[in-house]
Amino acid sequence: MDATKLSLVFKNNAKQHSISGLLSPPPQPNQKNIAPRRRRYRRCRSAPILANFVPPDKNGGGSLPRFKSKYAKFHPSFKQVTILLAVYLGLGTLCFYLVRHQIKGKKTHGLLDAVYFCVVTMTTVGYGDLVPNSVPTKLLACAFVFTGMALCGLILIKAADYLVEKQEVHLVKALHMHQKIGPTDIRNEIEANRVKYKLLMILVLLLLLILVGTIFIARVEKMGFVDGFYCVCSSITTLGYGDKSFSTEAGRVFAVFWIPTSTICVAQLFLYLAELYTESRQRSLVKWVLTRRMTPEDFEAADLDDDGVISADEFIIYKLKEMGKISQEDISHIMDEFEKLDVDQSGTLSASEIMRAQASQTES
Amino acid sequence: MDATKLSLVFKNNAKQHSISGLLSPPPQPNQKNIAPRRRRYRRCRSAPILANFVPPDKNGGGSLPRFKSKYAKFHPSFKQVTILLAVYLGLGTLCFYLVRHQIKGKKTHGLLDAVYFCVVTMTTVGYGDLVPNSVPTKLLACAFVFTGMALCGLILIKAADYLVEKQEVHLVKALHMHQKIGPTDIRNEIEANRVKYKLLMILVLLLLLILVGTIFIARVEKMGFVDGFYCVCSSITTLGYGDKSFSTEAGRVFAVFWIPTSTICVAQLFLYLAELYTESRQRSLVKWVLTRRMTPEDFEAADLDDDGVISADEFIIYKLKEMGKISQEDISHIMDEFEKLDVDQSGTLSASEIMRAQASQTES
Repeated sequence: MDATKLSLVFKNNAKQHSISGLLSPPPQPNQKNIAPRRRRYRRCRSAPILANFVPPDKNGGGSLPRFKSKYAKFHPSFKQVTILLAVYLGLGTLCFYLVRHQIKGKKTHGLLDAVYFCVVTMTTVGYGDLVPNSVPTKLLACAFVFTGMALCGLILIKAADYLVEKQEVHLVKALHMHQKIGPTDIRNEIEANRVKYKLLMILVLLLLLILVGTIFIARVEKMGFVDGFYCVCSSITTLGYGDKSFSTEAGRVFAVFWIPTSTICVAQLFLYLAELYTESRQRSLVKWVLTRRMTPEDFEAADLDDDGVISADEFIIYKLKEMGKISQEDISHIMDEFEKLDVDQSGTLSASEIMRAQASQTES
Repeated sequence: MDATKLSLVFKNNAKQHSISGLLSPPPQPNQKNIAPRRRRYRRCRSAPILANFVPPDKNGGGSLPRFKSKYAKFHPSFKQVTILLAVYLGLGTLCFYLVRHQIKGKKTHGLLDAVYFCVVTMTTVGYGDLVPNSVPTKLLACAFVFTGMALCGLILIKAADYLVEKQEVHLVKALHMHQKIGPTDIRNEIEANRVKYKLLMILVLLLLLILVGTIFIARVEKMGFVDGFYCVCSSITTLGYGDKSFSTEAGRVFAVFWIPTSTICVAQLFLYLAELYTESRQRSLVKWVLTRRMTPEDFEAADLDDDGVISADEFIIYKLKEMGKISQEDISHIMDEFEKLDVDQSGTLSASEIMRAQASQTES
């Protein structure tokens, strides 16, 4: 079915086209018709290529959700993260509730204290206002802090990233309130300054969390504003000296939601700073690679076919390698696939050829 | 001077070579002489290209030091990290020593307590056995925990990475003790399993640190082994409940060195786990991109010159884009540089052409 569709769409592409006019070298130098040959590398085809502009970066920090669809299966989904967190907190609360008599310290309500202790442990804040007081509870706390770290560090950061990206659109709109700006402009603006907007976003969120936290703690826990701020800093950095912590029921309910959100925000802020640094470092590396002088060794290495000249594609592949963006292995893998599809060994792929190769792959 | 050298080395490369035999399309399909055309993409030139195999990844986790030289200026050096850490700790100790009477808790020796408090704050362990007791000290602690986090998170992780890489060679040698293995084999083995070795390395180091910490704390701080282990876990995860902490002079001296090392090891372990996950995800993305069926839209997008067929270089560039390894922007930047060098507009670069272009760039 797929094959039929392909052949219908492309039956006009006769095979004799395989002698590519653009690939043939210019008969004489300085001829005009070579211009398109080089220009084609700049052509930015619309949808299919744009959809592939998702940089699969280390932090999983990617792109707008609409660009993600194609690669969605390689990221843990928001749903998966929520389920994992719910299971962890549910299990943690149950465990610590069952051993609540082996935990000493300032207590309020049994179940609430269990959630609170679980959150304080998971985020590694560890005030010490509630501490395990028997061998099993101590070992249980050890187990929960390690798994909690993994959960906080690896998965919630992705969730925060996801939420931040959703807000970016609103932020860009707000920043360009006086200009007429369409969805495409917004997308381009975000694409160009991805990390900067994410950083700005998280800073605004963090300041809000600090403000709300300070006011709440100062009021509800009846401390001054300085102590409230000190408790906020001690919490969001996961320092948790424990001389100031949440000791009322209302305070602990607030803490259960506020602590994970704010600690993750701080971690995310540092990650974005690192990303911004890496990006600018990467940019200077690219600039350096592009503008540095080519030595005889470079020339020899770039001239893959040993014909004494470097063609545009050789130049592109060499520079991409030098930037560390691609490796020889990448190219080898792609060429393996190319040769599999190139059934008539012509060195080029026509639509009908691909159709045939894919059909035979399905059969076998 | 550079130009003269180039011309001496390459004066045999006459310009008429610019009609690249390999770029010309085969006169007829199924001809034998097109094989080298495709094979050349697999050619792995030795030194200059190998030196570019450094993946500039997010964590700055890179490669063996010997591969780094070329990109060294884009990484903060080990020396810079050490200086920064020394300045931070020196300044912190001085500050907290000066305000030592505004810090309450279990005290030993004035200067030692100041270093200990600084380390416990910087790593966000925050036992709470020493806590600031005045408004200025509280704000000072807030400032130090934020800068300390940045220092620990962003810079020391690089240092740990550097140290781990130095040990990798010994690890590989140890694992292949019964086989004869040369330096090249070791390098290849490390290149292929980089993250796995780093993970193994950090695990061994961490287990050692846990063992030493537990024994030391149990003996010196006179706790049982369970409490010692509990204190170790509470410290290395930066949880720091504070019910068990270092209260003797000897213990605090040990803590000053042991806490930063072990907390960074734990953080590094989680980073490597994330890296391993990202790597395997990236590998499945590459596999998926390579083996998925090409749709008519893909074909149209890949066929940059609209000649109805896809050549090997079009295929490579399209697939690299689809994998997210390169973007249209990357190619545009490289083509800008190519056109600058291609002074005779022949579409290919000869050695003498590069020499002339670079000489004129220096003049202007």
